[in-house]
Amino acid sequence: MITSFNDLLRNVKEKPKKTIAVAMADEEDVLAAVANANREGIADAVLVGNRERIFECGERAEIDITNFDIIDVETEQEAVVRSIQLVREHLADVLMKGTCGTATLLRGVLDREHGVRSGNFLSHVAVFEAPGYHKLLLMSDGGMNIAPDVEVKVAIIENALVVARRLEIERPKVALLAAVEKVNYKAMPCTVDAAVIAKMAERGQIQDAIIDGPLAFDNAVSQHSCDVKGINSPVSGDADILIVPNIEAGNICYKTLACLGKGKVAGLIMGARVPIVLTSRSDSEEAKFYSIALGMITGGRSI
Amino acid sequence: MITSFNDLLRNVKEKPKKTIAVAMADEEDVLAAVANANREGIADAVLVGNRERIFECGERAEIDITNFDIIDVETEQEAVVRSIQLVREHLADVLMKGTCGTATLLRGVLDREHGVRSGNFLSHVAVFEAPGYHKLLLMSDGGMNIAPDVEVKVAIIENALVVARRLEIERPKVALLAAVEKVNYKAMPCTVDAAVIAKMAERGQIQDAIIDGPLAFDNAVSQHSCDVKGINSPVSGDADILIVPNIEAGNICYKTLACLGKGKVAGLIMGARVPIVLTSRSDSEEAKFYSIALGMITGGRSI
Repeated sequence: MITSFNDLLRNVKEKPKKTIAVAMADEEDVLAAVANANREGIADAVLVGNRERIFECGERAEIDITNFDIIDVETEQEAVVRSIQLVREHLADVLMKGTCGTATLLRGVLDREHGVRSGNFLSHVAVFEAPGYHKLLLMSDGGMNIAPDVEVKVAIIENALVVARRLEIERPKVALLAAVEKVNYKAMPCTVDAAVIAKMAERGQIQDAIIDGPLAFDNAVSQHSCDVKGINSPVSGDADILIVPNIEAGNICYKTLACLGKGKVAGLIMGARVPIVLTSRSDSEEAKFYSIALGMITGGRSI
Repeated sequence: MITSFNDLLRNVKEKPKKTIAVAMADEEDVLAAVANANREGIADAVLVGNRERIFECGERAEIDITNFDIIDVETEQEAVVRSIQLVREHLADVLMKGTCGTATLLRGVLDREHGVRSGNFLSHVAVFEAPGYHKLLLMSDGGMNIAPDVEVKVAIIENALVVARRLEIERPKVALLAAVEKVNYKAMPCTVDAAVIAKMAERGQIQDAIIDGPLAFDNAVSQHSCDVKGINSPVSGDADILIVPNIEAGNICYKTLACLGKGKVAGLIMGARVPIVLTSRSDSEEAKFYSIALGMITGGRSI
């Protein structure tokens, strides 16, 4: 079981190196993160985009990109198509967004004919290393699905479970978060969804995980909080995965930890045939680097 | 301007000591927090409840309560009524929940004849001292209003502004949070609310504050994040108050910082004629202590 980002890096380095395809690689931040990952021995990369602009960008930021293959294309659309083709031909294990638009990239991923869709919904899975927690903690979905219903929440859980398994977490404990731990069927729909999904898991409709909710955040990560409140849950105080009720809660959770709490974070889009590294320009260098490492451990044909 | 909890404590100690009325004080945690606050010279207290049980509780936990007046009553209902009466008679400046039910206490507060309602909605205001931020940061509402509409959100802002002013923050900067900084009028109603409220503030419908939104969490607390995204907001990177779109987002934000991020937190219910300290048993000792201190700086007849 991988319990920290250092653990994750060690683990990635021990495995055969995988390749990341970068769609529109002419962005300094992205090039820097990929070059850094390559120098650390955790990733190879194919850079797709306008060769001249990629070189200019590397020179401007003094980033050594001589280790990478470059596929020269002109337009954003071509860059997306070619990057995804690399994945389809098993020449890349992970997809990464450069300067192309998120919508363009995801449309390419989901294209029925030329894409790499898997039949599942796409969702964002974050991984936290927090000063106040004893292991890595996954959280979803703070980046993709705005107000997921039960069907989408189940898909969100399945995608998070894929990442958890790659982190060698056995029978991950999944907490379905709300603001309270009681079902409030009149005023808090997310507590109802949580109750329904917990029962679905109990009936075997979601496999190989221990799933409970509704739980408040503190119940999921603190046994003490469950003790004083008399909450008896198989997940209490030891959650591996937090499922948040809506995108606002997830997004604010992620950024509270990263911006205010000095936690380390990484994230991936899951649900396609390969993980997608889709960092924001406002993410820290560190977050981009860990996200690539997470992609490396998560990617590969056996997803 | 008060920029840390230590600052807050210093400030409270310099002022005339105020009094907290505890409704049903026979709880060890609450007694310990009140006794601690008294020892530190920041609060007097009147303990309301069954005298015998209060003494037993103090002895069991070895807490010195000889400094406090006790009002001996039998039932929860009586304890709530008498505590609130102390406030009405200006014998107490702050109300604190002991073992009485939250609903019972708030019903008493809102009682049209015998309560201490002020005409405003009640809301929870949290105050953070975070390792990653340069000053105190207020957040609301993660504890009271489940899915506030624009009217309630404006009340939530007004209540937070009362606390901000008591913390001597001039023209507080208020960020109306969403998962994104763009208005998504089709799929994200909270971005629409934020746009509406920001315009209301511009038109003078909310006074003495700089209010902007929608903003993502990172835009509100990190200038760097605004720079790379080209966001130009008077609030960017320097928010004093975060207004979250729903109770789940606020609750998860508060607990992410407290449980995972090693931040310091405090909280009050605002909107009545006095602040209400309503800590949860799962709150840390420290959070209870800072919440009392926050009540002390916020309470008093000039609210």
